[in-house]
Amino acid sequence: MGISDSARMGCAATPPPPYYLVVFASQRAASTDDGYAAMAQRMVELARTQPGFLGIESARGEDGFGITVSYWETEADIARWKEDAEHAEAQRRGNREWYTEFALKIARVERAYNGPRGPRGTE
Amino acid sequence: MGISDSARMGCAATPPPPYYLVVFASQRAASTDDGYAAMAQRMVELARTQPGFLGIESARGEDGFGITVSYWETEADIARWKEDAEHAEAQRRGNREWYTEFALKIARVERAYNGPRGPRGTE
Repeated sequence: MGISDSARMGCAATPPPPYYLVVFASQRAASTDDGYAAMAQRMVELARTQPGFLGIESARGEDGFGITVSYWETEADIARWKEDAEHAEAQRRGNREWYTEFALKIARVERAYNGPRGPRGTE
Repeated sequence: MGISDSARMGCAATPPPPYYLVVFASQRAASTDDGYAAMAQRMVELARTQPGFLGIESARGEDGFGITVSYWETEADIARWKEDAEHAEAQRRGNREWYTEFALKIARVERAYNGPRGPRGTE
């Protein structure tokens, strides 16, 4: 799972539920340039081209703790993205080098609300 | 929904699925001290005392975009927390003052994985 630390993505403009999401919470091991930033940006770009991709939101604080939420039409789309060869290599490097801890959840979205100035302007 | 910008919470140590989560993604209106930080810290403390609360993860970047994920046993627990009087007032102020946009999702967690050095040390 890639995380862009610099790109301003904002709130994702997702369709009405039901759909699925992946929460990826992670603590970065270090802030040195170890190839992470380039990989993270590449993973976001690659995710956008995958079947069933609906959107992505990402934030990382100065303490190195970050959360990325990606949205997908079906669980099968999530499974396929997990197995993507380039993504799988990024997962291996994340496991070994980039994160001191991470936790991932796959969940079915039941309800969604946007703020009055949210991505689609509806409450 | 409260967000602590300073407290180091890390990955939540959640139980095996199924359970529920709330994703709250938001863009802060300004970084001035407008009472937001104190409210955010208070909301995390208050959430921890609510029935069905399982954990919380939060990150906010320098651009003011943040994501908080809270975990709950049931949808009824989430509905009850939403209606809490102090929380409801925080929601009103968030709507009016603190956020330029926000988006909220309620989802049922189907599967969860932790990294090798994750909150519970299991893959």
